[in-house]
Amino acid sequence: MTKTLAFVLYPGITPLDLVGPLQVLSALARIDPSFEVVVVGRDLTPLDTDTPLKLTPSHTFDQVAEPFALIVPGGTEPTLAALADEPLLSWIRSAARTAEVVGSVCTGSLLLGAAGLLEGRPATTHWGFRDLLGRFGATPVAERWVEAGPVLTAAGVSAGLDMALHLVERLAGEQAARTVQLLVEYDPQPPLGGIDWGSTDLDFFRPHARAMLESALADHPALLARLS
Amino acid sequence: MTKTLAFVLYPGITPLDLVGPLQVLSALARIDPSFEVVVVGRDLTPLDTDTPLKLTPSHTFDQVAEPFALIVPGGTEPTLAALADEPLLSWIRSAARTAEVVGSVCTGSLLLGAAGLLEGRPATTHWGFRDLLGRFGATPVAERWVEAGPVLTAAGVSAGLDMALHLVERLAGEQAARTVQLLVEYDPQPPLGGIDWGSTDLDFFRPHARAMLESALADHPALLARLS
Repeated sequence: MTKTLAFVLYPGITPLDLVGPLQVLSALARIDPSFEVVVVGRDLTPLDTDTPLKLTPSHTFDQVAEPFALIVPGGTEPTLAALADEPLLSWIRSAARTAEVVGSVCTGSLLLGAAGLLEGRPATTHWGFRDLLGRFGATPVAERWVEAGPVLTAAGVSAGLDMALHLVERLAGEQAARTVQLLVEYDPQPPLGGIDWGSTDLDFFRPHARAMLESALADHPALLARLS
Repeated sequence: MTKTLAFVLYPGITPLDLVGPLQVLSALARIDPSFEVVVVGRDLTPLDTDTPLKLTPSHTFDQVAEPFALIVPGGTEPTLAALADEPLLSWIRSAARTAEVVGSVCTGSLLLGAAGLLEGRPATTHWGFRDLLGRFGATPVAERWVEAGPVLTAAGVSAGLDMALHLVERLAGEQAARTVQLLVEYDPQPPLGGIDWGSTDLDFFRPHARAMLESALADHPALLARLS
């Protein structure tokens, strides 16, 4: 039986959160037809992102009830607003019940948390929102990705690429992971090197994160209070 | 005056080619409002990609005549078919006349070549299509990205991230590049390390590349002969 890898689309996401792992897992599906990739959303309307690009899903939530894996991308204020999107959380909760892999990239893990899936688990997210994970009963971890049973959370935005390659190795073995890595030519050479966390000021982001949360959840005071 | 960074969309692309640098340069536009990002296409219809995701541009070619920069993503067979897409090549050629940056990711550089923009220049592309660059008068180079005057070409798919961060540094300085890198949390940790080119068999791809080219340009025998 074909294993369905379902990417979750909702309004306003950071497209690289979704497209990084989507490209990696689509390459897996090309070399191993026991996997198929779909992008699911409430309907098939093009959705805004935090860039000028619009994204359209391939399937509706109703059409993909029991995926083998689901992967939830994140974003900035619209993702925080989605913490109050009950139909979205309800699909995530229901799909997670039977899925073997429940994944997220960036602040997508906050949606897993809001769906009640991180209780008692280590998890990660974008560095600028990491302390919010504790409000959902998770233990925040500063790693590129974190695996805890079926739940696989990645750090911010580009971390979805590393997480997805790890997932390919887990699902199809090292040789498949090497072939996929070669096909998407993932041989990273950041021009200024990696991030030097020790010498980087992260506090500048705190008021921005706070302002985004307050604006996103202005109509949901109880949830806002829980997260503050 | 606002500097417009224009991403070129056409049918069937590899979405990560576009979304990697789009996310990076959108972060630049957020911290430096002297830049704006647009996605241009023939019209505003959602377009298929080599994944189940559809992408919709924000502007038409007619609306963006003289961008400061253009960046052309690549793909597999549909990009090779686009080598015969005269309206697309014509917009690229015309926009390149006044642009300060003419960029590409992956096989997008073949489109720059078909538009006559690589003559006598070093350039790169996806490793599986590198020898085609010579047919357009370019000197193929095996680097993550190659800068030759205004022309900036990146290697395959994920290489657009590295190229875009280099471009941010060039356009806005090292501090801006470090901030953007932090916002998209680009601190790559490929689970199996980088690609070990010395021990990797690349020849397996040759018949696939050949078959794609023949199928893509079946209706354009003169162009096919030139590229064979």
